[in-house]
Amino acid sequence: MKLGAIEAGGTKFVCAVGDEHGEIFEKVVIPTEAPTITMPKVYEFFENKGIERMGVGSFGPIDLNEKGGTYGRIQKTPKIDWVDFPLAEDIAKNLNVPVVVDTDVNVAALSESRWGNATDVDACLYITVGTGIGAGAVVNGQTLKGLSHPEMGHIGVRRHEKDSFAGACPYHGDCLEGMAAGPALEARWGKAGVELTEDPLVWEVEAHYLAQALVNYIYILSPERIIMGGGVMQQAHLFDLIRKNVVDMLNGYVSSPRLTPENINEYIVAPGLTDEAGVKGALGLVI
Amino acid sequence: MKLGAIEAGGTKFVCAVGDEHGEIFEKVVIPTEAPTITMPKVYEFFENKGIERMGVGSFGPIDLNEKGGTYGRIQKTPKIDWVDFPLAEDIAKNLNVPVVVDTDVNVAALSESRWGNATDVDACLYITVGTGIGAGAVVNGQTLKGLSHPEMGHIGVRRHEKDSFAGACPYHGDCLEGMAAGPALEARWGKAGVELTEDPLVWEVEAHYLAQALVNYIYILSPERIIMGGGVMQQAHLFDLIRKNVVDMLNGYVSSPRLTPENINEYIVAPGLTDEAGVKGALGLVI
Ligand SMILES: Nc1ncnc2c1ncn2[C@@H]1O[C@H](COP(=O)(O)OP(=O)(O)O)[C@@H](O)[C@H]1O
Ligand SMILES: Nc1ncnc2c1ncn2[C@@H]1O[C@H](COP(=O)(O)OP(=O)(O)O)[C@@H](O)[C@H]1O
Ligand SMILES: [Zn+2]
Ligand SMILES: [Zn+2]
Repeated sequence: MKLGAIEAGGTKFVCAVGDEHGEIFEKVVIPTEAPTITMPKVYEFFENKGIERMGVGSFGPIDLNEKGGTYGRIQKTPKIDWVDFPLAEDIAKNLNVPVVVDTDVNVAALSESRWGNATDVDACLYITVGTGIGAGAVVNGQTLKGLSHPEMGHIGVRRHEKDSFAGACPYHGDCLEGMAAGPALEARWGKAGVELTEDPLVWEVEAHYLAQALVNYIYILSPERIIMGGGVMQQAHLFDLIRKNVVDMLNGYVSSPRLTPENINEYIVAPGLTDEAGVKGALGLVI
Repeated sequence: MKLGAIEAGGTKFVCAVGDEHGEIFEKVVIPTEAPTITMPKVYEFFENKGIERMGVGSFGPIDLNEKGGTYGRIQKTPKIDWVDFPLAEDIAKNLNVPVVVDTDVNVAALSESRWGNATDVDACLYITVGTGIGAGAVVNGQTLKGLSHPEMGHIGVRRHEKDSFAGACPYHGDCLEGMAAGPALEARWGKAGVELTEDPLVWEVEAHYLAQALVNYIYILSPERIIMGGGVMQQAHLFDLIRKNVVDMLNGYVSSPRLTPENINEYIVAPGLTDEAGVKGALGLVI
């Protein structure tokens, strides 16, 4: 059976034809411009490929409510051309296939749970720390949805005692994303994240915020593994700092062998998939 | 078909025989003493009733990991007699039925989603604010589990600017439960919660903490309805304060018609079930 998959990202659309085993046969990358420019190229690629269903992992915010009449519609986003674009509906109409949409981070979590670093567990969480902070999760074998897609990057965090940065989130100021995403790092320390290497305080503060978030996710969602990706996590030494902070903050409260100092480095891990994570996860939505 | 249900609480065990439609035919209340005293009475009630499966909503912490070999075992709890008691195993052995166990709050969420104030939505969260703070959730039609049961009552909160109370959680000090459960109210203000009526600051502070928690639950879990129960929520005026704080804190970030000032009082609500919520929810586990 042939299935379609689209990773609809802020800079590029990755389109692929694959099958129900997660195999990918053919792939194309299309730059993200206005929908009127990008979408016709997408349709051209998929035309006459005989795909039966389409899975889409999309940048957001996007409406995931299947009952609301605007399922798969892009919501307010800084990408003006895409505001209110009915992504799912447009694809369904143009390619004449059923479409399943989810957020990019939910799709990344699904991908890791099927083919990456969380194949041995039932519930995992994927968090990306990049230009923004977003997280997705797989629970009971399905991606986590509800009222709307989760916005885990915007939870409240407690300030590090040595940090007086006001916060960079336009909605909340000093929420997690406002304190710990790449642009916050840059605004706080006056240098791009990639150049910030020396001062241990930089990473102590960063780990303080990210660990708080993980602890909240553990208390609320109880994932069996946490996968951390995104540009900022290229600073590989952050992993150990975060792990240590998480163990300290939990203070033994959640009794699980996965959360002990010995096992925590198998609990908080880097992604197992790199290049094809997004598009494979999108395929996973329709398998 | 006859099904068994047990609401295993800290003060009483409610045992019932019901059916797959959620109908309850017979019920008994047994005080919670040591397992050696309480459990034989439980077994006596169910003997020869012909039940085919047993659902149990239990106080915790309790092991919910089906793969670990200690499924349904009570973990460390202040109730010394119950520490390490293999609740599910003991029931299965004595009554010769398959047993499904879940937390009391997950079961309350399930009950509300099947028969209470969340029958019209797919994902709901139930939070109790009493001697402790706990929450459970139904997601994709099932209760939320993972690594362990969630411990949503222990998330971090930001201090109210007029509050200098140190916090009453033995594990975290000023976590949500440490700041907002009944005993915290009493320790901070020097009077039992039920007597605290006059000073608006009392409830402003309380709503500040509870609303923060709900906002985090919304960002992370995205429930379609939140149900608030427990002793402290008997202060019915708290509902409106919490609703207002939630709307303010979200600051329009999550775009859902459920979260507007007009609709928020149908989003954050009191429980729809009272007396039989726990035991009906336990029944729900095996339907
Ligand atoms: N090695 C690095 N160390 C710290 N920060 C980095 C590093 N590489 C990229 N970043 C930061 O990560 C952000 C980009 O994240 P990325 O995940 O690559 O993209 P996006 O989130 O836009 O998809 C930028 O703010 C950048 O400064
Ligand atoms: N009307 C009330 N106003 C404020 N607090 C109350 C009220 N009634 C009970 N409480 C508090 O709620 C807690 C008991 O919660 P409850 O949900 O009844 O029991 P539990 O959590 O032990 O199952 C106590 O700390 C008590 O002080
Ligand atoms: Zn924010
Ligand atoms: Zn606590």
